[in-house]
Amino acid sequence: MNKVFTFNRVTFIGFGLINSSLARIFKLKSLSKEICAYSRRKETRLKINDLNIVDQVYDDLKKSVENSDLIILGVPVGSMGDIVKEFSSSIKPGAIVTDVGSVKKGIIDSILPILSKDVHFVPGHPIAGTENSGPEAGFADLFKGRWCILTPNENTSKKAVETVKNIWQEAGMKVTLMDADYHDRVLAITSHIPHLVAYSIVGTVTELEDQLKTEVIKYSAGGFRDFTRIAASDPIMWRDVFLNNSEAVLEMLGRFIEDLTALQKSIRWQDGEVLEELFVKTRDIRKGIISEEQD
Amino acid sequence: MNKVFTFNRVTFIGFGLINSSLARIFKLKSLSKEICAYSRRKETRLKINDLNIVDQVYDDLKKSVENSDLIILGVPVGSMGDIVKEFSSSIKPGAIVTDVGSVKKGIIDSILPILSKDVHFVPGHPIAGTENSGPEAGFADLFKGRWCILTPNENTSKKAVETVKNIWQEAGMKVTLMDADYHDRVLAITSHIPHLVAYSIVGTVTELEDQLKTEVIKYSAGGFRDFTRIAASDPIMWRDVFLNNSEAVLEMLGRFIEDLTALQKSIRWQDGEVLEELFVKTRDIRKGIISEEQD
Repeated sequence: MNKVFTFNRVTFIGFGLINSSLARIFKLKSLSKEICAYSRRKETRLKINDLNIVDQVYDDLKKSVENSDLIILGVPVGSMGDIVKEFSSSIKPGAIVTDVGSVKKGIIDSILPILSKDVHFVPGHPIAGTENSGPEAGFADLFKGRWCILTPNENTSKKAVETVKNIWQEAGMKVTLMDADYHDRVLAITSHIPHLVAYSIVGTVTELEDQLKTEVIKYSAGGFRDFTRIAASDPIMWRDVFLNNSEAVLEMLGRFIEDLTALQKSIRWQDGEVLEELFVKTRDIRKGIISEEQD
Repeated sequence: MNKVFTFNRVTFIGFGLINSSLARIFKLKSLSKEICAYSRRKETRLKINDLNIVDQVYDDLKKSVENSDLIILGVPVGSMGDIVKEFSSSIKPGAIVTDVGSVKKGIIDSILPILSKDVHFVPGHPIAGTENSGPEAGFADLFKGRWCILTPNENTSKKAVETVKNIWQEAGMKVTLMDADYHDRVLAITSHIPHLVAYSIVGTVTELEDQLKTEVIKYSAGGFRDFTRIAASDPIMWRDVFLNNSEAVLEMLGRFIEDLTALQKSIRWQDGEVLEELFVKTRDIRKGIISEEQD
């Protein structure tokens, strides 16, 4: 595929797993003449310099975005609004702002009113990740074959949406458009609740008496081991996800706790039939996912 | 390592993921002159024949164990007692009986009273598995580097324990001894509760309205995808695990639901501090597991 776009100057705000992975792709594929990054923390800025991906590393937000035609927000969901407020007056007219946050409605509500009318905001969520965080955790293949969901509204420039779509396709993603609210409900189930449950169960283990805890860590296989991997994800990022998608998360969490409590009762009453029926039914969902991946 | 043991005749009762994997090792390493298998289902017996691992496949339980010096039980936890009852009179004096069940106390209570005094029962649990089941799902490397827990009591023959230990070491496992009750508590946390939670959350999804369910399956990444893999495990095996380890499972499940409900409250009250504190703490457990694996 020939590149149908190149930027003069792109700025990555925040340089964690997602942004640092995408920056690698910008570098490898020469998608921008100049690649810039801003990070609040000195330690992170030093790490970014060491990686040799970025041309300019800034500790000044406003300067970092000046003259950029593309600004990519990769900071925790709860910080997005404040950060954009700080640099919004420095954005070049006609520039595109996009983000990589796991929650869409809350971000749109906090960012859209701040931006001037001649700046295009295309909210986005590349569904990819590992349990690792920080600039050094990134890698160019992170996005390959995964979905990216963009949640523009009816006023968003079609051309800006197309440009952001092209970027994620260059990263190897399948891109789809979705309503922001709907995105947040889907992600509450596919990602937010599983993370919350994993955090919670690993938290339960941290409160066990010492000897039992030691044995649990030693003999953890299958199930719990997978949960600890999920529960090792970035704490600030996930705190913000739950605070900013609380409505959808609480709705699904309520349903889940109901179902779990029913299971608890089935075990107490030794009702094998109910257990077996559920365990057979859940296999079909897995089959659905596997066949989706083979499409 | 030189083999310090060989059997004349070994019988695998049941030929699912674990037993069929172990049988592959018996075959590869010539650990027994004759390898036999029993399966209740004709379909499974035909599959076993096709695999070319086993010398004799039986549909008659008693005949399958006659003259065997080692009998390995790999059937669902809830069937162990009935099956042993059916063939116990045919076991050769001095033979060793062992099992691979994920619950130990319940199995011991159902099997030990049935066996005659001159038969050695060494309860065992190789902690290894995948979400796949059946004879064709097995592979010789399944056990490599994993733990196997044996739960003999003070009357179990030391020599028999040593023999079973050698078998699992040949399979590449690290072997440890543990009290049966304690094993069941540890496994309730490391394996049974995570499976129950995964089954439950995938079950919650099966009850969503159709469109949302379709999108959830389509965009499932990270968290939920891992859960569906866990929740695709063998239904009968897991039904029996929960019915036979209900005490430890219910105790831990109670703690977990309490902790999850507290988290629910923190989200409702937008208490970011509590969330962050937990999410930082859970990372340490992961570090513990990683460093344990590097030992």
